[in-house]
Amino acid sequence: MIETPYLLFLGDAPDMLAAKVAIGIRDWRPEHAVGQFRLEGCGADLGLTDMTLAEAKDAGAKTLVIGVANRGGVISKEWKKVLVTALEEGFDLASGLHNLLRDEPDLVAVAEATGRTLHDVRVPSVKYPIADGKKRKGKRCLAVGTDCSVGKMYTAMAMEREMQERGMKATFRATGQTGILITGDGVPLDAVIADFMAGSVEYLTPDNDDDHWDLIEGQGSLFHVSYSGVTMALVHGGQPDALILCHEPTRAHMRGLPEYQLPSLQQLRDTALPLARVANAACQVVGVSVNTQHMGEDEAKAYLAKVEEEMGLPATDPYRFGSGKLVDALAAI
Amino acid sequence: MIETPYLLFLGDAPDMLAAKVAIGIRDWRPEHAVGQFRLEGCGADLGLTDMTLAEAKDAGAKTLVIGVANRGGVISKEWKKVLVTALEEGFDLASGLHNLLRDEPDLVAVAEATGRTLHDVRVPSVKYPIADGKKRKGKRCLAVGTDCSVGKMYTAMAMEREMQERGMKATFRATGQTGILITGDGVPLDAVIADFMAGSVEYLTPDNDDDHWDLIEGQGSLFHVSYSGVTMALVHGGQPDALILCHEPTRAHMRGLPEYQLPSLQQLRDTALPLARVANAACQVVGVSVNTQHMGEDEAKAYLAKVEEEMGLPATDPYRFGSGKLVDALAAI
Repeated sequence: MIETPYLLFLGDAPDMLAAKVAIGIRDWRPEHAVGQFRLEGCGADLGLTDMTLAEAKDAGAKTLVIGVANRGGVISKEWKKVLVTALEEGFDLASGLHNLLRDEPDLVAVAEATGRTLHDVRVPSVKYPIADGKKRKGKRCLAVGTDCSVGKMYTAMAMEREMQERGMKATFRATGQTGILITGDGVPLDAVIADFMAGSVEYLTPDNDDDHWDLIEGQGSLFHVSYSGVTMALVHGGQPDALILCHEPTRAHMRGLPEYQLPSLQQLRDTALPLARVANAACQVVGVSVNTQHMGEDEAKAYLAKVEEEMGLPATDPYRFGSGKLVDALAAI
Repeated sequence: MIETPYLLFLGDAPDMLAAKVAIGIRDWRPEHAVGQFRLEGCGADLGLTDMTLAEAKDAGAKTLVIGVANRGGVISKEWKKVLVTALEEGFDLASGLHNLLRDEPDLVAVAEATGRTLHDVRVPSVKYPIADGKKRKGKRCLAVGTDCSVGKMYTAMAMEREMQERGMKATFRATGQTGILITGDGVPLDAVIADFMAGSVEYLTPDNDDDHWDLIEGQGSLFHVSYSGVTMALVHGGQPDALILCHEPTRAHMRGLPEYQLPSLQQLRDTALPLARVANAACQVVGVSVNTQHMGEDEAKAYLAKVEEEMGLPATDPYRFGSGKLVDALAAI
């Protein structure tokens, strides 16, 4: 668990795109973000109060979160100065960078001397069990995609918010770096050892109240040959009661695989559902989440209507039109 | 690559069951085994010449392979004495034990001093790439099972031998500890980081001659919720042209999962084939390999005949009746 609230470190981010993690925290856990810390020349602005480390400390911040990708995989001198000072002033550090904080001897030395914690969310900090497949209490919903990066995390986040607003019991369960930094907890599934993948998902989504929903962040795709094993572990380890199909209709090919075409939503349903039923015979596909960012509004609405008719399932773009339809479908189970 | 030939260390194995790895080497790569080394009270005997370290060295042995499971996950004093002496006498050591040779400071010190290598095949020694899904030359066959431990390794080994005897180009590709120790090379897939699983299988089965077959050792099962992600990575990373369905008909439930039933061979086919075709549209299911060890001979033959009729595919128990039918089916592709 990463201690909240956070001061969001934007560093010298060239643009908003580089600040994806910080934006996620601001959008989904605004109560976790007391302010932003920017270096000279920073091209990103979250619209949060700019704070010094001391000001953020006074405002209650516990952890400095690196909310930005670094260039060339190197932690620069300018960054390092801030990170060291933050440790000295009593902040923990949290990072999803590929190059780990724990691999920087100066940060390790200062963290030890000051008794602070370095959170590298890219790698697991838990020894996960092997999955035992035992039926768990509570309900679980998993977003599965026709491809990677089609909006699975966003869908689960949006559903969690809507469900909580309705007074339903719901918890987003992070399985990737961004989700872990946003919520302060989770499993970095792509970095887990093969034998323990499904077990780590069981660990992440334990027994719960009968009317509680875990909204499990999806990863990869059963149709993405690079990462399908990770997706499979979610489908079986997650033991989902409900699947949401996620799709981005304008993509020309599978992400990073120019020779591979996206499956149809029907193919995704017909593949994912029987596999999910191995772990939970009661699993149902309850809705479709479409990322329509590359479509005009009329086009998006027409597409969603067509999907609803063809699939016989509620379909929405949760970013554009809200996740209400998907939550209605969950509530009806 | 582990240097061959080997001296097989049986230690104080209580019985033959504990010497599974050594038996595998003797059965499948007899040319790799110059002899066996047994301690006082050893209850296993491979029928190989008992040799001292010096005799084995004279006979050309390069590596002492721990061909036996240890008790309680501890390397005993008696074992240690032999292992240290072996390093001093110029042997490399190879082990598939859970507790790693590299975690024993005395072995590490002696190996460094003598310039010998400690091979822990349970953990990867290669930084594998992320899979790119590019179409590779040569042909690949993958054994997929209704469950774990139904004879997938044995099937691939038996097919390799039969194919080589027929003058076909064939290479068994190990994906587990036993297979790696038998052949001296491979990928310990269950210990690979999730993101790199499919990439490690691509690495293991690269471009080859058009008429060359890689016989990929299967792992887990698409229907085994603990390990299905590993299997999925084989199905996509392996890009198989041919699948062999493997089954053990007398099992009461999935291995280690008392609440889960085995799928039928039809279910296995209908699940595995569409998934395999994501990576290789030409993939076919070519045959069925049945482990009939718990059936009488007549019963086994009747069962195989029934499978052939129901599935429309050649079916055999490669241990009992040879793998000829399966190789015939591959040769016909």
